[in-house]
Amino acid sequence: MNFCPTCGGALHLEPVPGDRLPRHVCRSCRAVHYRNPKIVAGTLPFLGERVLLCRRAIEPRLGFWTLPAGYMEEGETVEQAALRETLEETGAEVSLRGLHCVYSLPHVSQVYLIFLAELRQSEFNPTDESSEIHLVRHDEIPWTEIAFSSITFALQRYFSGESGGVARTFIGRHGEAP
Amino acid sequence: MNFCPTCGGALHLEPVPGDRLPRHVCRSCRAVHYRNPKIVAGTLPFLGERVLLCRRAIEPRLGFWTLPAGYMEEGETVEQAALRETLEETGAEVSLRGLHCVYSLPHVSQVYLIFLAELRQSEFNPTDESSEIHLVRHDEIPWTEIAFSSITFALQRYFSGESGGVARTFIGRHGEAP
Repeated sequence: MNFCPTCGGALHLEPVPGDRLPRHVCRSCRAVHYRNPKIVAGTLPFLGERVLLCRRAIEPRLGFWTLPAGYMEEGETVEQAALRETLEETGAEVSLRGLHCVYSLPHVSQVYLIFLAELRQSEFNPTDESSEIHLVRHDEIPWTEIAFSSITFALQRYFSGESGGVARTFIGRHGEAP
Repeated sequence: MNFCPTCGGALHLEPVPGDRLPRHVCRSCRAVHYRNPKIVAGTLPFLGERVLLCRRAIEPRLGFWTLPAGYMEEGETVEQAALRETLEETGAEVSLRGLHCVYSLPHVSQVYLIFLAELRQSEFNPTDESSEIHLVRHDEIPWTEIAFSSITFALQRYFSGESGGVARTFIGRHGEAP
C-alpha cells in the first residue's frame, strides 16, 4: 500500500490517535486506510455417507482436491457467499445445515467459514474452476492430494465423529497439529 | 476507490477474465483490487449467570451497551483477535468456550464472529473505549440501549436456552426478525 485509493496521495505508516498500531495515512487528504483479513466462505456438501470434492482447474494448487469455497463479496451474508461459491464451482444446489468450521490462516490473513450442506440431489458438473467433481466415501478421500490445510481440517473433523450428531463448530488454524 | 494503492495510477471498473463481477483495475500496472467484507471478532464473557456488558465511550453509538468486539487485524487468528479486543476494551482475561454466533451485516459488509468466553475472575475495568463495565443478569439487560443488532442477537440467543448446553453456533443477519 503506497498510494491513497481515495485521492492518490502518498501513504505513510503513522501513529493514529486512539489506535495501538501505526496505519497507512494519506498526507494529502488524511484518510486512514486499514488492511483486513479476508473471508473465504464455502461448504462441505454431503449426500448420505459421501462428500463432494472438486479438483481444482485453476491456480493455486491446480489439480489438487478441495471443497467449494471462495472469497466473500461485499453486500453478501456469509451464507449467501457459501451458497454462491458452491453453485459457481460445482453447479450443485445445497441446503445449509449449520456452520462446520472456522479456520484461520494468519500467515495469509484469511479465515475460512465452511458450512455443512446437504446436496438436494446428485446433480453437479465440472465448471471453469473445477475440472472434476466426485462424491466420495471416507475411505476414498485422497488425503495427500488435498489443496489446502483448511480443507484437510474440515474433512478430518467431519469424519471424526466428534460432533456427536449435533451441528457444532470446530475452530482451527493453519500450522496447528490436527 | 479511485487510485491504485500500488502505483498510484487511475482505477477503472472493468471486466476481469474468469471473474463474474467488474473489478477495480489499474490502467498503469494492471493490478486488480478487490473490496472485501470485514471481520469483527469479539466475545460474550460470562461468569455464573451474569454476562459482561460495556458502555461505549466512543462513536458510533456512544453511551449504548455492547460486548467487547472489534476489527480483526492481519496476521491474527479469529480467537487471538477476540481475546485481544476483550482485553483492550474491558481489561478482562477470558477463556474461549466455543464460537457462539456468526452474524452478517451485508449493508455495511461486516461479519461478527462472537465467542463464548468464561471470565477467569471478576476483574475488569473501564478503558478508553468503555466508560462503564458491568456484570449483569438476564433480567438486567438494557435491551433498548444495546448498540448494535449483532449484539442484541448474541445476547438473545445466549439467554434463549436453545443451545441445550452444547457450544453450538447461531447464524444470523442484520434485518432479519430474531
